[in-house]
Amino acid sequence: MAENKTNQWIIKNGSFAVPGQDKPVIQGCMVIEGDRIAYIGEEMPELENDVPVFDGTHLFFMPGLINTHGHAAMSLLRGYGDDLALQIWLQEKMWPMEAKFTSSDVYWGTALSVLEMLKGGTTTFLDMYDHMDQVAKVTEESGIRASLMRGVIGLCSEDIQRHKLNEAIQFARDWNGKADGRITTMISPHAPYTCPPDFIEKFVQAAFDLDLPMHTHMSETIAEVEQNVRDYGLRPVAHLEKLGVFSRPSLVAHAVHLTDEEIGILARNNVAVSHNPGSNLKLASGVARVTDLLKAGVTVSLGTDGAASNNNLDMFEEMRLAALIHKGVSGDPTAVPAYEALKMGTVYGAQSLFLQDVGTLAPGMKADFIALNTDQAHFLPHTDLISHAIYSASGKDVEHVWVDGKQIVKHGACLTMDEERIRREAQAAFEGLLSR
Amino acid sequence: MAENKTNQWIIKNGSFAVPGQDKPVIQGCMVIEGDRIAYIGEEMPELENDVPVFDGTHLFFMPGLINTHGHAAMSLLRGYGDDLALQIWLQEKMWPMEAKFTSSDVYWGTALSVLEMLKGGTTTFLDMYDHMDQVAKVTEESGIRASLMRGVIGLCSEDIQRHKLNEAIQFARDWNGKADGRITTMISPHAPYTCPPDFIEKFVQAAFDLDLPMHTHMSETIAEVEQNVRDYGLRPVAHLEKLGVFSRPSLVAHAVHLTDEEIGILARNNVAVSHNPGSNLKLASGVARVTDLLKAGVTVSLGTDGAASNNNLDMFEEMRLAALIHKGVSGDPTAVPAYEALKMGTVYGAQSLFLQDVGTLAPGMKADFIALNTDQAHFLPHTDLISHAIYSASGKDVEHVWVDGKQIVKHGACLTMDEERIRREAQAAFEGLLSR
Repeated sequence: MAENKTNQWIIKNGSFAVPGQDKPVIQGCMVIEGDRIAYIGEEMPELENDVPVFDGTHLFFMPGLINTHGHAAMSLLRGYGDDLALQIWLQEKMWPMEAKFTSSDVYWGTALSVLEMLKGGTTTFLDMYDHMDQVAKVTEESGIRASLMRGVIGLCSEDIQRHKLNEAIQFARDWNGKADGRITTMISPHAPYTCPPDFIEKFVQAAFDLDLPMHTHMSETIAEVEQNVRDYGLRPVAHLEKLGVFSRPSLVAHAVHLTDEEIGILARNNVAVSHNPGSNLKLASGVARVTDLLKAGVTVSLGTDGAASNNNLDMFEEMRLAALIHKGVSGDPTAVPAYEALKMGTVYGAQSLFLQDVGTLAPGMKADFIALNTDQAHFLPHTDLISHAIYSASGKDVEHVWVDGKQIVKHGACLTMDEERIRREAQAAFEGLLSR
Repeated sequence: MAENKTNQWIIKNGSFAVPGQDKPVIQGCMVIEGDRIAYIGEEMPELENDVPVFDGTHLFFMPGLINTHGHAAMSLLRGYGDDLALQIWLQEKMWPMEAKFTSSDVYWGTALSVLEMLKGGTTTFLDMYDHMDQVAKVTEESGIRASLMRGVIGLCSEDIQRHKLNEAIQFARDWNGKADGRITTMISPHAPYTCPPDFIEKFVQAAFDLDLPMHTHMSETIAEVEQNVRDYGLRPVAHLEKLGVFSRPSLVAHAVHLTDEEIGILARNNVAVSHNPGSNLKLASGVARVTDLLKAGVTVSLGTDGAASNNNLDMFEEMRLAALIHKGVSGDPTAVPAYEALKMGTVYGAQSLFLQDVGTLAPGMKADFIALNTDQAHFLPHTDLISHAIYSASGKDVEHVWVDGKQIVKHGACLTMDEERIRREAQAAFEGLLSR
């Protein structure tokens, strides 16, 4: 362990999920030193006498959940237009309202989402949106970890394209590594159907210049796949490969409609997929071929997408949906077992965001973790804590949250954000959007 | 309003979901008198001066949720065997353990489930199991409402068949109308594949003799449908119709695998269906044709099934799954809108259990209702409370629960059950089962 012992504290009598390691659950203790985990194991380590002790009885500690696709500010449109055909929802509900979003709206919408995510056990989120300085500000203030990017739609003049690209580059450069390293950035053309090919190539160049990964929406609906074939003679995967996107470390969101050949291309290029089961079901996009992707060795993580198409940001629900729907649709009850769903929400999430030191609990990893209160009816009997976390838990079972070793949520209350003010301001922002 | 004014109290400043009525949400107040609702509306009614007032600010009142299929005692096996092929799960995990269940196990398993259900906003549940006196006892003590029945498997000698049938009849006769009318009973052969035809006919006769409705599992898996055709030359729906089951008011659980013709038979006979989306997905049984059933005019309600195949008893999750999966699988984003899912969890639930006076909030109805705390990040902005209840809520958002006008859950704590003792005894019961 490191020299500075004063910075240490220990959790005793806990159960710890350690996804991706030999044994998925450890009964014992964990030592945190500063922003990192110093020790985890069944045996008590030797420590100074005065190290603070946190009693882990009745708590199930897990790595903080990692939400690998979303648009946090869209929580301002939660419940504003459900159960509609996709084009009506977009053209009559989402786009007219989003066009009115100011930076203040993005700030309060993001704050509302980050508050919900933190309280629900998400310690890292990806955000692709506009007014990203505001998202970075919320990230900095709240203590959450984030992978942030300006998502650029290129259906506009070359002048505006250039302006947006520069904005995306500027943001990525300015904020990468900020907030004590909690913020990393990516380069993100919105989607193949919203960005012309030569415009996407400019993003690839920027990603090379800045040495950053790339993120984009891909193959969410059948319609966009068909349009891609009509417009460019290729399905989206081959199209993005051809444009050089996959020569960068890449994460694609949705990937619902894939051929075997496309799965092969993703696997060969180490492209990670953010599976968004809740959003894909609600918008009737379809059911992604997750078991086939996993079988091919593709890293599949989980995202909530924006709250307007979900409608919550509870990653426990995404893990459960991932574990449930692929069984029901394939007819195979062994598809996506609970432990695999847990990995999708944690280890694979970290891999999808190209983060080396989060996603599981182990010495040297960042101390991003959460604690569930297991002394509740729906977690009994204590048969299999990972099964309970996936099939029975919700974000509301999260009792405590730590990021970088700092406690952010304590007994369900957020210590770093003014919850009451955020609720009030988010409601006011929505009413302002309605009235403008 | 009735004479006895002393028995009245009023909720002011509330939002009330009134599924199945003209306008789905009322902003206003509700008067409760004894065990029934006396008034609900936007205007304040004239009342005596000293009527107690309950402040409904920030609360969303809904009819208590109605769980129309389950086996409560199976919560003792929650997480004991997940992600397994159905026959292995049944033969190696469930059946050997269930064979060891004593009446005490059933008591504590049921108590654990009822505690979870009440805290999660379920005020009425159906239970089909063994040792049903214990289930009735938990129902009586806890204050929940229930439709109870001995579920009989008939793969045994005629002597044992006769004994079980008599037990089922005795239970149905003894308990119907008990616990201040909170308990009603049904007659329940377990399933067409576990009960020979002549045995099922005896249940039909019993249902006629006692003037009770019938409940059975039906067409949960493709395998059982195929077996039915092999054994009896008919698919299960025609088989049950031929045996006279549908000449009684009937509720069938699952009904995953149906032809158009079978949907027609169910509609023609007013047979209600308990859709169990969580269990059907987890056991990989498939996705029921819910939109087709609804279109044909069949009453479709929701059930959790036992906690061993779900793995929680959160009816908010079943409503959300019902609203999500049929969109995703059909490709139609307007399939099962939020309001329809709410009706499936409430009004249609009452109809499925043949209860006239629960399922919505209206004068004369039983005062079975719940209150969600809407002053939380995931319920903001306040766009559409029904959308939030379906797409964003979980059982953990339930703040208060009333059954028969009596408060059962207050600020998330159950007033009628010893929570700590139930948790301890349920754990001990599971450990006992393991060690026997």
